[in-house]
Amino acid sequence: MVNTQLINPKSIVVVGGSDNIQKPGGKILKNILDGGYQGNLYVTNLKSESVQGIKTFADVTDLPEGIDMAVIAVAAQFCPKTVDVLAKQKGTKAFIIISAGFSEENEQGADYEQQIVKTINEVNGCLIGPNCIGVLTTHHNSVFTTPIPPLEKEGADFISGSGATAVFIMEAGVSKGLKFNSVYSVGNSAQMGVEEVLEYLDETFDPNESSRIKLLYLESINKPAKLLKHASSLIRKGCKIAAVKAGTSEAGSRAASSHTGALASSDVAVDALFRKAGIVRCYGREELADVAAVFMAKELKGENIAVITHAGGPAVMLTDILSEGGLKVPSIDGAKAEELLNKLFSGSSVSNPIDFLATGTAEHLGFIIDACENDFDHIDGMAVIFGSPGLFPINEVYAVLDEKMRTCKKPIYPVLPSVVNAKGAIDEFLAKGNFGFSDEVNFGKAISKVYQTPIPQPIIKDEQNVDVKRIRNIIDQQSDGYVAPDVVQSLLDAANIPRVKEFVSNQLEELLELVKIVGYPVVMKVVGPVHKSDVGGVVLNVESDEQMTDEFHRLMKIEDAEAVMIQPMLSGLELFVGAKFEPGFGHVILCGLGGIFVEVLQDVSSGLAPLSQSEALTMIRNLKGYKLLQGVRGKEGVDEHVLADVVERVSRLLECSPEIKEMDINPLLGKGKKIVAVDARIRIEK
Amino acid sequence: MVNTQLINPKSIVVVGGSDNIQKPGGKILKNILDGGYQGNLYVTNLKSESVQGIKTFADVTDLPEGIDMAVIAVAAQFCPKTVDVLAKQKGTKAFIIISAGFSEENEQGADYEQQIVKTINEVNGCLIGPNCIGVLTTHHNSVFTTPIPPLEKEGADFISGSGATAVFIMEAGVSKGLKFNSVYSVGNSAQMGVEEVLEYLDETFDPNESSRIKLLYLESINKPAKLLKHASSLIRKGCKIAAVKAGTSEAGSRAASSHTGALASSDVAVDALFRKAGIVRCYGREELADVAAVFMAKELKGENIAVITHAGGPAVMLTDILSEGGLKVPSIDGAKAEELLNKLFSGSSVSNPIDFLATGTAEHLGFIIDACENDFDHIDGMAVIFGSPGLFPINEVYAVLDEKMRTCKKPIYPVLPSVVNAKGAIDEFLAKGNFGFSDEVNFGKAISKVYQTPIPQPIIKDEQNVDVKRIRNIIDQQSDGYVAPDVVQSLLDAANIPRVKEFVSNQLEELLELVKIVGYPVVMKVVGPVHKSDVGGVVLNVESDEQMTDEFHRLMKIEDAEAVMIQPMLSGLELFVGAKFEPGFGHVILCGLGGIFVEVLQDVSSGLAPLSQSEALTMIRNLKGYKLLQGVRGKEGVDEHVLADVVERVSRLLECSPEIKEMDINPLLGKGKKIVAVDARIRIEK
Repeated sequence: MVNTQLINPKSIVVVGGSDNIQKPGGKILKNILDGGYQGNLYVTNLKSESVQGIKTFADVTDLPEGIDMAVIAVAAQFCPKTVDVLAKQKGTKAFIIISAGFSEENEQGADYEQQIVKTINEVNGCLIGPNCIGVLTTHHNSVFTTPIPPLEKEGADFISGSGATAVFIMEAGVSKGLKFNSVYSVGNSAQMGVEEVLEYLDETFDPNESSRIKLLYLESINKPAKLLKHASSLIRKGCKIAAVKAGTSEAGSRAASSHTGALASSDVAVDALFRKAGIVRCYGREELADVAAVFMAKELKGENIAVITHAGGPAVMLTDILSEGGLKVPSIDGAKAEELLNKLFSGSSVSNPIDFLATGTAEHLGFIIDACENDFDHIDGMAVIFGSPGLFPINEVYAVLDEKMRTCKKPIYPVLPSVVNAKGAIDEFLAKGNFGFSDEVNFGKAISKVYQTPIPQPIIKDEQNVDVKRIRNIIDQQSDGYVAPDVVQSLLDAANIPRVKEFVSNQLEELLELVKIVGYPVVMKVVGPVHKSDVGGVVLNVESDEQMTDEFHRLMKIEDAEAVMIQPMLSGLELFVGAKFEPGFGHVILCGLGGIFVEVLQDVSSGLAPLSQSEALTMIRNLKGYKLLQGVRGKEGVDEHVLADVVERVSRLLECSPEIKEMDINPLLGKGKKIVAVDARIRIEK
Repeated sequence: MVNTQLINPKSIVVVGGSDNIQKPGGKILKNILDGGYQGNLYVTNLKSESVQGIKTFADVTDLPEGIDMAVIAVAAQFCPKTVDVLAKQKGTKAFIIISAGFSEENEQGADYEQQIVKTINEVNGCLIGPNCIGVLTTHHNSVFTTPIPPLEKEGADFISGSGATAVFIMEAGVSKGLKFNSVYSVGNSAQMGVEEVLEYLDETFDPNESSRIKLLYLESINKPAKLLKHASSLIRKGCKIAAVKAGTSEAGSRAASSHTGALASSDVAVDALFRKAGIVRCYGREELADVAAVFMAKELKGENIAVITHAGGPAVMLTDILSEGGLKVPSIDGAKAEELLNKLFSGSSVSNPIDFLATGTAEHLGFIIDACENDFDHIDGMAVIFGSPGLFPINEVYAVLDEKMRTCKKPIYPVLPSVVNAKGAIDEFLAKGNFGFSDEVNFGKAISKVYQTPIPQPIIKDEQNVDVKRIRNIIDQQSDGYVAPDVVQSLLDAANIPRVKEFVSNQLEELLELVKIVGYPVVMKVVGPVHKSDVGGVVLNVESDEQMTDEFHRLMKIEDAEAVMIQPMLSGLELFVGAKFEPGFGHVILCGLGGIFVEVLQDVSSGLAPLSQSEALTMIRNLKGYKLLQGVRGKEGVDEHVLADVVERVSRLLECSPEIKEMDINPLLGKGKKIVAVDARIRIEK
């Protein structure tokens, strides 16, 4: 577990600190010094008596007792001994090992790594790395890289599975004015991985003190359940989380694996996990930084954006992308709009986009923002696009923007396109602690992405008559493999999933009695052969005793025929619900429409169990064929709530049956409020 | 028409040039001077005797004769007179009017604008603007804005419908190392619009001298046919064109209209036009600049990219996005790969991504690029990702990159993520005339977009027995409105579009004779009532004379019944082909599968007439339901070439019938090589 010694150490030793700031050991010491670290700083170095103005110790054994944290930059082979001395003799509880040459390199290195973790665990300490760039907190700059972004408690907590990528993300971030509260590069994650750091941030979350923005860069998800638990917990506490999970494609996974040695998680499961947790999923560094900048704005409480500009083109492009992303750029009119228009130069427009022309002034911008804040109640947020053709400085305009961003309750998103002409003004604006976007379309994509990621809903367990005890009884009696049809039926019954009435018999007389319960027309299927259709073993629309008698005799003559099953002949929309167990993630539940929708269009929604009613509904509504469920062309659809009930019951069934590794209800026939499972398969692996 | 006086004027007068470089008239003069303009430069100014070191003339009448080009920065009201004097007395043939206050402002301004155009047309001159930022060529910097990008003949020709947006696009471009050959801001397009400038670039294209990269920013397309003609012509000559057309959404169109007063073109038609021309469609400034940078690389001759990196994360993300975009990051192995691996530090990987580690050197990068260039034949291009954690300068690495980009035949795409740490090295690299990307994912999207935009194919007019003369005869006899069913049939027959055999009669005896030609089972439809199904006027699957007799009597009793039509009862996949006339664009032809595909999934492909066989095939292959045409689950599909023939014949029919404003063949039933039109509607407007 991350501890306070790592976050706010009273004393730090840099093991292997040097004067050469082109090497990690020298640079990390320089960064700590430049950051104005307030505690006691020690350095060990074999050769020099002092480095960077600090008297050195030749060996860690020479150090005084009671050193909170160690930054280690010596070769891997010396690390186990160093850690041992510090942990056991000097009371050190936090370790950052930046050296490489451990498990990522060879077996010897993996052995060093294990020894170190064992030692640190024994003293209940914490380890970041090895093979990482270090840690940044508001108390110390223990990274060997630059840039060191502004560190403030309103900034983002950033945890990265890759050191170089962390650097590049910070570089992308600082140019947008992104601030940080902490940065953790977990390297080999020998003891603390991304998940453990997130756990710490969750468990120590203080609504008054903690940052509300978390950024993650992941190449593998080693502990999906832990990630889900703490990400969704933090988001429920009011945090916002955005993450890149690299390695989505097959080729990309290969790249990620060769890079980190990690096994690629199924991307569908990753996606389902992120959606369940409420994590905004990003696919690149720039995108992550743009989303993080959106997070830094005040809370957007609705979907209506005023686009404020002095240049038409970018406003049009932004309006396009916002509309596409589900946000609105609503018309603005009425007396207050007229009043505003009168304050602007002739030719301006306030109908939204609000265009105050190339000649528009800082004062005009103030009028417009005030009107959006106070007069236009339906406006929830403002995007202000202001650049410069290079004629004169625009610092005054940005000063108004700065002031309004501070004072307005509605969020303001500045788009500052003149990265060349207004570079000075932009730098000044960002230096005041603001953020800004250089491209309106990238901003529009980022805010849409945030808007489209719902926060996780609490799971309300409606018992729904799911008989957990009976399910467990049945599962406990099963051995590995596909479960027998009658057992599948019992499980569906126990989970209260409606299924088609069906009867099996090898006696014609019995079937002729049973058909009275089912009612004509019926379907007859041979029992025994695996591929029933291929051997002519399925007869649809049997309408009379006479026809049933003929078909019974024909079916029983098929090779391997043991009996005949009858089911009512049902009509309705073909649906399916399925699930697959993904190690670490748990059950990924899939649902959709049958036929061409799944076969041709791959129209499948996925969600991570356990699913709430609202999650199941979202899955259903995300289907491309959703309109068919609503009913088209006068055809009756399927009640989405009843289908969501079925999905939720499947989730409940799986929740108490981790032994189910695969499950398929296909088809599931639906008509209005009536949905019944026609066929189902369940595979168990204990 | 753009003329040489605009591109390379021997003399320029700046009308309204001043000392105040915070105003357009002063700044444009400064830019021309700073650009080292080689010809004679004159300035008019009422108040000062000299500005910016140049002796002024008080009035244009005082100027000497024979001034090639005028840049006009005086108030709108003075412009008509000024232009008149210059055009008629001073022999001026090229005009750039940067002043505003013309048609974009009020009627008086529109009147000034008309006078000016009339005068310039009289002397066969050319006008850029008014209300624009000006023109940049390799000969003169006649814009009042900054930045002035590097101007070289290998650079892009950039034509923009918006001045401010042109500035912001240049700012986005120069930070990626984008060079320009010319920049035209067309302002109000009073005489020359984007289309006319493109026409000039096409007609004067010189394979040895002209730039091969064209960039467009459009808010409206006033002359679609001209745009299509010259864009596709340029692309066929080896050029690459990328364009942003803003105003795609309804709200965005409103924004564009209020901005430019232009009518929004249907976005489907815009999309179809771009695809037909081979224009790479972009949706934002950054994206346009990224695509332009991709254009600047050498020709990518295949789909296989080597991802070369010293940092794992960005390589994984790039591999993901390339794979998603249809490009490949293929494995690299074999003896040559081993040889390369031996030259790199232990722990490197050459399997692609090629990761030469954080410690990798400039020399290593050279080995890798050489191997990709010479040894790995299946590699078509290289993406090199190299940043810096900030420890030491990486200029040496970028020097190797620079050298290899010059010497290698395969394209190299540099991704330079360290916009902070390596800013100096990046600036130095770009200053050598190179381009570079800051974000690997944005680069990946841009190159995928270029890769996915095919160059336009020549239209080979297979006559296909389309009887143009007969079609014209029929069309000429029609009046406005929906065409009668028998005329629709004649048109389909003349266009050689197979249709279902059908006969109409109000005599039962006659129908009973005709059915022998059609063959049972047949469909019977009442003729007369408009909504046949609603009045029970359609009977499917009529199988005997007896049944036909009964149904005939029933149908003829329906209100408004005039006769009964019989058609064979057909089965097959439901398809449709339709078209809509879009003013300016011509016919947009649509095709797709019927039923839920069009109603629920809006699965429609569009193309701009005239369509070639290969364009029709591309449309068909882009359908989401394409797999159904190929046949799924043992069901027979539809021959795509036969369907493409039908689409092409519809195109031929429309091509000779501009009076057809709407057309629908729906359904069109297809089974294997047999496709027949079952129902069709045609609306004519002359």
